[in-house]
Amino acid sequence: MARLVLKFGGTSVGDPERIKNVARKVKQEVDKGHQVAVVVSAMSGVTNQLVEYCRAISPLYDAREYDAVVASGEQVTTGLLAIALQEIGIGARSWQGWQLPILTDDVHAKARIQRIDTREIVRRMEESGEVAVVAGFQGLSERGRISTLGRGGSDTSAVALAAALNAERCDIYTDVDGVYTTDPRIVTKARKLARITYEEMLEMASLGAKVLQTRSVEMAMKHRVRVQVLSTFEQAAGSDLPGTLVVDEDEIVEQELVSGIAYSRDEAKITLIGVEDRPGVAASIFGPLADAAVNVDMIVQNVSEDGRTTDMTFTVGKADLARGVQVLEKAKDHLKYRKLLQDSNVVKISVIGVGMRSHAGVAQRMFKALADRGINIQVISTSEIKVSVLVAEEYTELALRALHTAYGLDQA
Amino acid sequence: MARLVLKFGGTSVGDPERIKNVARKVKQEVDKGHQVAVVVSAMSGVTNQLVEYCRAISPLYDAREYDAVVASGEQVTTGLLAIALQEIGIGARSWQGWQLPILTDDVHAKARIQRIDTREIVRRMEESGEVAVVAGFQGLSERGRISTLGRGGSDTSAVALAAALNAERCDIYTDVDGVYTTDPRIVTKARKLARITYEEMLEMASLGAKVLQTRSVEMAMKHRVRVQVLSTFEQAAGSDLPGTLVVDEDEIVEQELVSGIAYSRDEAKITLIGVEDRPGVAASIFGPLADAAVNVDMIVQNVSEDGRTTDMTFTVGKADLARGVQVLEKAKDHLKYRKLLQDSNVVKISVIGVGMRSHAGVAQRMFKALADRGINIQVISTSEIKVSVLVAEEYTELALRALHTAYGLDQA
Repeated sequence: MARLVLKFGGTSVGDPERIKNVARKVKQEVDKGHQVAVVVSAMSGVTNQLVEYCRAISPLYDAREYDAVVASGEQVTTGLLAIALQEIGIGARSWQGWQLPILTDDVHAKARIQRIDTREIVRRMEESGEVAVVAGFQGLSERGRISTLGRGGSDTSAVALAAALNAERCDIYTDVDGVYTTDPRIVTKARKLARITYEEMLEMASLGAKVLQTRSVEMAMKHRVRVQVLSTFEQAAGSDLPGTLVVDEDEIVEQELVSGIAYSRDEAKITLIGVEDRPGVAASIFGPLADAAVNVDMIVQNVSEDGRTTDMTFTVGKADLARGVQVLEKAKDHLKYRKLLQDSNVVKISVIGVGMRSHAGVAQRMFKALADRGINIQVISTSEIKVSVLVAEEYTELALRALHTAYGLDQA
Repeated sequence: MARLVLKFGGTSVGDPERIKNVARKVKQEVDKGHQVAVVVSAMSGVTNQLVEYCRAISPLYDAREYDAVVASGEQVTTGLLAIALQEIGIGARSWQGWQLPILTDDVHAKARIQRIDTREIVRRMEESGEVAVVAGFQGLSERGRISTLGRGGSDTSAVALAAALNAERCDIYTDVDGVYTTDPRIVTKARKLARITYEEMLEMASLGAKVLQTRSVEMAMKHRVRVQVLSTFEQAAGSDLPGTLVVDEDEIVEQELVSGIAYSRDEAKITLIGVEDRPGVAASIFGPLADAAVNVDMIVQNVSEDGRTTDMTFTVGKADLARGVQVLEKAKDHLKYRKLLQDSNVVKISVIGVGMRSHAGVAQRMFKALADRGINIQVISTSEIKVSVLVAEEYTELALRALHTAYGLDQA
């Protein structure tokens, strides 16, 4: 007997038939004797429609009212799933954010969970095995208003609830069956990982492998919640843990050097040629960009030949490129660069693995594999468990396949 | 300066543009210096969709979960209208049933309002003129669950809120511009009534002139809430009261003999031929029908010729006819009637007016007008302020026009 939190995303609860399917999944766990709480998203498409309504009425909508509007989608799903569970003989009731309550701060549309009162649902679990069907994404603000956690927030609701319930595990049911060594649509030899560490998962998520919301992984790491990513649509073939388990490093006995290769096409490169090479120049460039809410990612400053000027290269999100360039052109007189180059035809490719902390030569293997295929590296950045390179976008597939083989990740 | 409650139905808030239109209507009242609370329904079509979801998952759904599902529609509209009001410079915020709260009993899906706490919205109205945008249809049950008042319940929410706020008037905005002397689609000379009494409105509503939910009129009558029915889509031409005012009899100075002619096609007639004429026979017929939830309306028992048997005629709703006949055929041995006749090709036509309390000859004028057109009356029933007849359905239009003229209701 264990206590579990199961979370189902929008595609999994997209219509009445799918909600019935979810109810059967939940029943399987209840039948094993587990105490179960379920967290649900809105039916797919619903939240987008509601956001569109808000925007159609006012582009500068009040976030508190936006929250009242968009939180309604999860409310619908909780009621429908409770009905579906009762229909197949499982005691269940719906819980809205304000009913538990799930208390959040007052930062509407991106609220943070502060506390979840689980006393009543625990009492019911223990007394009668009743399944708590909890609305994801939403909470109750300090001032008694409906709050929401930001898009994708239901993952975070589920992990927070698992932490509050001291659950054995938080199962995130989604439309993929786990976390892969890389994108299986590009690399057919990609393997599903049985386990991955929180740190690796965070790097994967932030690099565009959008299986879990980043905040939910941070929260799982902080509270040591074991998270399983698995498919709603494929039936587990015998295994108790058919998906990928996101866990603490200690739980992974044989750690690979590299766990996965991630990529992000949402990158654009800006190069400032002939910037003055003097103290404070970086601050004078990146200050105005930060003020304009342009997020800068990789930064490279070349050594200057003459000791007076240097070239500065950095990347921003594709959507921020035009704004970033505008900010820099306005500041040209002040920054005194000679020329601005921009390029959105780039991709960032990263090898990720906690194993590289204790192994040398990981980056070198990457550079060699790319060089062997004649792929030119434009920018390099590294962290403790990740090496990222920026290359021309047309090499995406070639680079991913080469690296996947180079690090021994190919399926047997 | 007055305090007003404005209520907008599903068609009035059917899309973002219409919600903006509603905001402008609200602004007009605020600009006059009034304190305003607004009650809104779900966007048209939304509640039907949600009900369909519940049914698709289980025909025998838990009413508490059904309530959680369907109440979400009104939540969406409150947030959107609050945004629309803020957009045009009117301070506003949304209030869900559980936030005020609007306390109801525990009879889910058809809950009754017990108390509305208006302290906070009154404080805000008085301090800053903030408009309260309140979700219709929903409330908070004694056990802290979301409850709903039954279909069309937003009218009742609005009247209850007007009573709790001691409002000057409750304006029900809808897609017709008022209450007419009869259906203007059939009788082109039908006139819009400036005023009508609660009692007359109740008879109109129960006879299928579905402008206001019956319960809302009962509540208005009980709490003496002045209700105006008016159009969302037509601009008031100068007049302060462009619609029809539903008020106490005392407020109507010149009372007409008859205020309106209503009709209902949702009628079916059952006749039992050769029933034993003995005490208790009516009870033995209508008892089983009541047990089967078949509502019986008009009842006529003919005087028996031989003193031993009689014929019993009564009407039921068209949807109940098959069930009613089945019940009676099962009980044939016990009831000992000779023959059962049924006819769903009938219409009930009623003349309504509190004026008939103090005037004789009202029924006689009806019978004569129908006889003059060769229309045979099958069943007659009367109440203090109403005379109803059942005639063959094909005479509906002819009968309505004849009676409209006979009672002097035709437009000048």
